[in-house]
Amino acid sequence: MSAETALSIYALGGMNEIGKNMYVVQYEDDIVVIDCGNKFPDESLLGIDLIIPDISYLEENKEKVRALIVTHGHEDHIGGIPFFLKKLNIPVYGTRFTLGLIELKLKEHKISRETELHEINSNSKLNFGEMNLEFFRVTHSIPDCLGVLFRTPEGNVVHTGDFKFDLTPASNEHSDIHKMAEIGQEGVLLLLSESTNAERPGSTPTEQLVGEHVLEAFMKAERKVILSTFASNVSRLQQTVDAAIKTNRKIALLGRSMVNVVEVAMERGYLNIPDGMIIDPKQINELPPEKVAMLCTGSQGEQMAALSRLSTGDYRGVELLPGDTVILAAGPIPGNEKAVTKIVDNLFTLGANVIYGPGSSSGMHVSGHGYQEDLKLMLTLMKPKYLIPVHGEYRMLHHHRLLAEAVGVEEGNTFILKNGDVVDIKDGTAKHTRNIPTGNTYVDGIGVGDVGEIVLRDRRQLSEDGMLVIVLTMSKSDKKLISGPDTISRGFVFVKNSDELLKDVNALIKRTINNMEEADKKEWGMIKKNLKKAVGQYLFNQTKKKPMILPIIIEV
Amino acid sequence: MSAETALSIYALGGMNEIGKNMYVVQYEDDIVVIDCGNKFPDESLLGIDLIIPDISYLEENKEKVRALIVTHGHEDHIGGIPFFLKKLNIPVYGTRFTLGLIELKLKEHKISRETELHEINSNSKLNFGEMNLEFFRVTHSIPDCLGVLFRTPEGNVVHTGDFKFDLTPASNEHSDIHKMAEIGQEGVLLLLSESTNAERPGSTPTEQLVGEHVLEAFMKAERKVILSTFASNVSRLQQTVDAAIKTNRKIALLGRSMVNVVEVAMERGYLNIPDGMIIDPKQINELPPEKVAMLCTGSQGEQMAALSRLSTGDYRGVELLPGDTVILAAGPIPGNEKAVTKIVDNLFTLGANVIYGPGSSSGMHVSGHGYQEDLKLMLTLMKPKYLIPVHGEYRMLHHHRLLAEAVGVEEGNTFILKNGDVVDIKDGTAKHTRNIPTGNTYVDGIGVGDVGEIVLRDRRQLSEDGMLVIVLTMSKSDKKLISGPDTISRGFVFVKNSDELLKDVNALIKRTINNMEEADKKEWGMIKKNLKKAVGQYLFNQTKKKPMILPIIIEV
Repeated sequence: MSAETALSIYALGGMNEIGKNMYVVQYEDDIVVIDCGNKFPDESLLGIDLIIPDISYLEENKEKVRALIVTHGHEDHIGGIPFFLKKLNIPVYGTRFTLGLIELKLKEHKISRETELHEINSNSKLNFGEMNLEFFRVTHSIPDCLGVLFRTPEGNVVHTGDFKFDLTPASNEHSDIHKMAEIGQEGVLLLLSESTNAERPGSTPTEQLVGEHVLEAFMKAERKVILSTFASNVSRLQQTVDAAIKTNRKIALLGRSMVNVVEVAMERGYLNIPDGMIIDPKQINELPPEKVAMLCTGSQGEQMAALSRLSTGDYRGVELLPGDTVILAAGPIPGNEKAVTKIVDNLFTLGANVIYGPGSSSGMHVSGHGYQEDLKLMLTLMKPKYLIPVHGEYRMLHHHRLLAEAVGVEEGNTFILKNGDVVDIKDGTAKHTRNIPTGNTYVDGIGVGDVGEIVLRDRRQLSEDGMLVIVLTMSKSDKKLISGPDTISRGFVFVKNSDELLKDVNALIKRTINNMEEADKKEWGMIKKNLKKAVGQYLFNQTKKKPMILPIIIEV
Repeated sequence: MSAETALSIYALGGMNEIGKNMYVVQYEDDIVVIDCGNKFPDESLLGIDLIIPDISYLEENKEKVRALIVTHGHEDHIGGIPFFLKKLNIPVYGTRFTLGLIELKLKEHKISRETELHEINSNSKLNFGEMNLEFFRVTHSIPDCLGVLFRTPEGNVVHTGDFKFDLTPASNEHSDIHKMAEIGQEGVLLLLSESTNAERPGSTPTEQLVGEHVLEAFMKAERKVILSTFASNVSRLQQTVDAAIKTNRKIALLGRSMVNVVEVAMERGYLNIPDGMIIDPKQINELPPEKVAMLCTGSQGEQMAALSRLSTGDYRGVELLPGDTVILAAGPIPGNEKAVTKIVDNLFTLGANVIYGPGSSSGMHVSGHGYQEDLKLMLTLMKPKYLIPVHGEYRMLHHHRLLAEAVGVEEGNTFILKNGDVVDIKDGTAKHTRNIPTGNTYVDGIGVGDVGEIVLRDRRQLSEDGMLVIVLTMSKSDKKLISGPDTISRGFVFVKNSDELLKDVNALIKRTINNMEEADKKEWGMIKKNLKKAVGQYLFNQTKKKPMILPIIIEV
């Protein structure tokens, strides 16, 4: 950081994307990191398991990094933490529930012991160098969410976390609206506010609506009821449990994350399920169907999750039968639509009564992210001089800027940033003039950051057109062909039709080598290059496919 | 077909899917095929270009196949025709506009000359054996659409084609409601009716609404306007042209299919563009921006299409500038949502004013498929004894059945079929008791039907985990290793970190071969199998990836 700039703010993830949120507030030599999420790869990133933020800049400045503050326990805010801590073992601060979910991850990665976890709540105060941090409660779709206030000598910076204003939340966790108003009155130099629903007019509906619809469906259901939602949406789980109590049903939990999160939520007092109410899935068949409800994972169409397996009859010991009711109590995240509708189709095929629908149209889902009126209320309460819209794709950030201007943020005072863009603040004036290097880190099996563009490019070619290996055994002394060519193809064309093609390829290979011999170009690299070109061109002409050509020369 | 059954109906595509529509009506030894569409592969079908119906059953019965009737010119109804005709050269019947689009395809595939095309209209009558065909006009999102009536000695069969009831269509092509009513009065034994929007309550909005919104946007626009839609939606093109005329703009056409379809539509009288109004894209910069409009392809986010290239500044000679207006006048087809929003993001980044929105929320798109009330109106007009819901995924067919029962089709008289399921009709009674083999035919490069599950399975493994080729040069006489192992990996792990790994693999290979030598299992196949297992297991333990292991043994 330049010596003149005291306060700097930047994102290492979360800009122009939904996922892998990571925001940084730096005052002089103290760096505080907010959140460390992951993101799931799209289909172009073949074989990649996860995407996490590239934290090389923080590694280079590790002596300055004081803390990781976690606003809430969703994957796009905590999913990168184990990978982060393995590189940079710093103290982690989060609420009781958030820490519960983080601990599950640390155990999986076997780094619980060496991690320093600090529980905070909305009354906590923390100091890092000259930054004093306070917190305020926000409502979202998971318990125990915080926004963060940074008091710095340059002025106050606020990060909202993910939020909506649910004035009648299903739990008794209300937004700290009065505290937000006080912070606004004290003065906010710069606000980082989430943008997920900046395109949607109106206000986000309250979670209680879902509870009412769930209860109605439970009352109507004549046989088993299966409700699938995000395991972390504990309010929705609680409302489902309440509906089961009212309709005299026991509850079975299907799916590992459902079991894990329910355990954390119950242990820590966020979910109240009466003793004896939870049954083992194996007991389902012992009860009359109208006495059974299930909570299950897989609402996003995940192929290995409980709902998908139920829909294809592959969930051991639990069977869906005609007349059972299945409730999809979650909207599909963009990109998952087709997987979800495939499951809906399968459920209907089994004769289930399926309650589903895009967005909140079925009444079984409401968003956890504020719509335009919620975002305007946050801006109105905070009255920031500057806004950095975060947590959104470009069009969302863009709309958030328009909303800010509509409620009084001056034109030019909203910064639409890319990951790595730095806003420096000096004497009350914010400027974006520089950026730090960052990007995506790919998790591929156990490899973190090992897979780059070359491997992905190869995977793309292999995935679409397959490959052809050409093995030539050649004499070391005179560079003549001793045996071969042997050719092996995989993923290219089906062999029954390609015998003749491969015969032609073999002849072409021999011709190419002979021609080169004549031209006296007997260098291995040149032979390989010419073979690749000749065979590749020939195959493309014949098949319109471009398999990867791998010539291997064995010297004997 | 069994001798006892005179009338049979089945689908070779279009059941439990949106796409590759192909329905067959067979009376004794006469087969009439309705439509021959394609479908685009999802991301699991790596490298596959297109999916078309498997017509092997028709090929086996080719002496009976009399005609291909095409209801309208959308890809999911005509996209398979060239492939079909190459195998089974039968006469094709379609309306003037439909034939125009089919001819474009035939030219591309160089089979125009040998194809027999017959123009029909809603007054045409055709006879094939004892089947007498008549037609009725339906409204949809492309000109010149037909439904088909088959009069057979067993009774009347009706296929609706794709339709909605647009009572104020933007063109003057109205639904033949009176003719439908007459057909219903005459008596319909069995109705095949499309199901795309069977989940959506209400009636489909009229296309004229789009025209009003387009005109409004053109009037507000202060600079260039770019409207992207399906080239085949000629009514929408006409309404856009009309808006351009009213706002004094010239029109440029971007994208090959836009140019082609506009040409067909103008030539054949479906689109009216005044002389001198169309400009070459190169002339855009010569005019003031408020005098320019463009019609462009790419509304589904297709990467190589005009809109995508405009959004990234890669369209030669045409530049989007801040203040230009871009209208996405098409809803994203399920699966394309992410590609479309990526383009919207890029357009906003360029400073364009983008008018978009899910479904019809922006007012710039209405569906061409009837909602529930439209489907109920068709059922009410036709009063069929039996219904086969077609053209939809399972849940759509299921909802269509519920609608049919609501308007009086008897329970048990709706057949929800899979492709290949046959409904046989005898003495006024329809039964589904048998099926014929069918499935998906993959087009892969120039290969049609060559790629099967093995190739796809290999591509999947290669795409996610890459591969490792192991070359061993071994003595033919004593089966000892002479040179190698040589290993080459592609798409597996990035080489900088894998030197040590590959060293270990080489040692493991040698060990494996030595062990086998001792056990005297010197058979090539066994050596390869053991190598695959040992190396695969080792690599999975080390990396959690399962690359394809390809051992190659060179005998010297």
